[in-house]
Amino acid sequence: MTRPTRKLLETLKGHAQPIPPVWLMRQAGRYLPEYRATRTKAGGFLDLCYTPELAAEVTLQPIRRYGFDAAILFADILLVPDALGQPLSFQEGEGPKLAPIRSEAELATLKPEATRPKFGRVFETVARLRQDLPHETTLIGFCGAPWTVATYMVAGGGSSDQADARAWAYRDPAGFGRLIDLLTDVSVEYLSGQVAAGADALQIFDTWAGSLPDNEFARWVTEPTTRMVAALKSRHPEIPTIAFPRGAASQAKAFAAATKVDGLSCDTSMPLPAMADLGDTVCVQGNLDPLLLVAGGPALDARVDALKAAMAGKPYIFNLGHGIVPQTPPENVARLIARLRQTSG
Amino acid sequence: MTRPTRKLLETLKGHAQPIPPVWLMRQAGRYLPEYRATRTKAGGFLDLCYTPELAAEVTLQPIRRYGFDAAILFADILLVPDALGQPLSFQEGEGPKLAPIRSEAELATLKPEATRPKFGRVFETVARLRQDLPHETTLIGFCGAPWTVATYMVAGGGSSDQADARAWAYRDPAGFGRLIDLLTDVSVEYLSGQVAAGADALQIFDTWAGSLPDNEFARWVTEPTTRMVAALKSRHPEIPTIAFPRGAASQAKAFAAATKVDGLSCDTSMPLPAMADLGDTVCVQGNLDPLLLVAGGPALDARVDALKAAMAGKPYIFNLGHGIVPQTPPENVARLIARLRQTSG
Repeated sequence: MTRPTRKLLETLKGHAQPIPPVWLMRQAGRYLPEYRATRTKAGGFLDLCYTPELAAEVTLQPIRRYGFDAAILFADILLVPDALGQPLSFQEGEGPKLAPIRSEAELATLKPEATRPKFGRVFETVARLRQDLPHETTLIGFCGAPWTVATYMVAGGGSSDQADARAWAYRDPAGFGRLIDLLTDVSVEYLSGQVAAGADALQIFDTWAGSLPDNEFARWVTEPTTRMVAALKSRHPEIPTIAFPRGAASQAKAFAAATKVDGLSCDTSMPLPAMADLGDTVCVQGNLDPLLLVAGGPALDARVDALKAAMAGKPYIFNLGHGIVPQTPPENVARLIARLRQTSG
Repeated sequence: MTRPTRKLLETLKGHAQPIPPVWLMRQAGRYLPEYRATRTKAGGFLDLCYTPELAAEVTLQPIRRYGFDAAILFADILLVPDALGQPLSFQEGEGPKLAPIRSEAELATLKPEATRPKFGRVFETVARLRQDLPHETTLIGFCGAPWTVATYMVAGGGSSDQADARAWAYRDPAGFGRLIDLLTDVSVEYLSGQVAAGADALQIFDTWAGSLPDNEFARWVTEPTTRMVAALKSRHPEIPTIAFPRGAASQAKAFAAATKVDGLSCDTSMPLPAMADLGDTVCVQGNLDPLLLVAGGPALDARVDALKAAMAGKPYIFNLGHGIVPQTPPENVARLIARLRQTSG
């Protein structure tokens, strides 16, 4: 059986499309009533992530509603530490909680060989999805980048400035480097398992890449991502990878060249001329402001048009610069899709 | 009497120095035991800001200890809304609290004509400082940029993504624009009063500039700053202004050209080659990671050397990429100054 043509995959190969393919970060989420209903059924957030039937269901919901060009696996970047044996919990209305890892001894409690049972549930979700999705819809697997996942593991949760991880990296670069290396290796296995289960493309989320100076960025963001992309390419030459080093607009071009990613996702602050310039060397994704999707109206239309115009003739995947926020009116997403796909004007 | 030569002012005029002048954002602060002692005497944080004797004292403390090339007035960017009649409070261990302003009616409660009593206390601090500082020490006055101050006024305090201000700007750009215009005008008066009282240079802090897409950045960051710089230049042609649009590294060059600022302060994420490039057109300030100042040691020395080397021959003011953090060991600041000022190697 030949693989059907998928517009988003064609774009990632460098072929510009007259109408850019589109998906939205956190497109499966609390702004959708059907998501909230499934979430209630699941119990906790982690139960939702680890129950293939339910995780697949919420992944499919926005595809049914809007016909996005890609579905992204419903999961969380912190399933990796959880599977490694750093137990994760989510309190209602608060962020994630983990027992912090800040020393070699705590690092030694992580068990890369023990991830299979939890990762296996995620792979099952992927397999269900590839079966249930329309053929033309690309299925994106993902993980958090080693740096970003490490910031949560070291802080024991979210933090405004990632100070604990940055401090460990300065104090003991060799020790911190072992955590990054471990995460790099485990993340390659995790993504590789997603590909084996049916993922067509991969995205690596580096939400906190922007908090690092250039020399630390090279060491903790560019290097591990380069290593991941190379390892994945050697195992799965046909599977493209998108990186999202958020907050690092000024380093985007050099990062894309160094890592050899197929796609680079741009955050909200990336100027349009810089995105267009980047589009000459790599497939570009992003950067609509999620708050503009809350506001809607003619301002939303104007920015959609501006993004389309700036990226015309270049390989471009329409997306947000950050995840959809819960207060987004679902009708504004429909408006965005209609505007993007209208052929005149 | 002729004005004595001040190394930092010379640098802001575009004259590169063999050893860059240095000051550090939040150099008067909780990492210093003498600051904590004065703070205890003052009662609340706002009392410290509004008591000229005490505010001048904490401003002078780091100058006495380290001989920085500049002192920066001790104050807070939220004194402007407080003086406008949006009462401000600081709870111990929490951030600032304000009654949110999100509508025209709430906007009408602000009284630009009523700021004088509170601003007057700040001006008195400035006057004391210019009298007490060594002649060679530049006195920097400052305010928050309209966009950043507005984000606090609209949210009623700090917020992780400035969503309330951004949402108002999308929903009702004309109404939000009136808040920005009011802040622009009041900030010019405020900085102009600081100059009249003795400030030698000015800095405009735009901590949250990085959360905006390029078109919104142009409207809410670049435009008001341009207007402020032009108004201040016409009143005080000899007084240089430094802008600090944090998180906007990718827009730094265009921003500096548009606003005609004398100095551009760069955050931690600005790559050194981009800083050096910027140094061909404007005086550059920054971007040492405050957490590296916590770590200290050879890593700190190496980065100080790298910054000096990258900016050699260009007008450059040594500084951090963000404020000093409270856990900074005071001896690491001494180490930084010694390393920076050593003439060999």
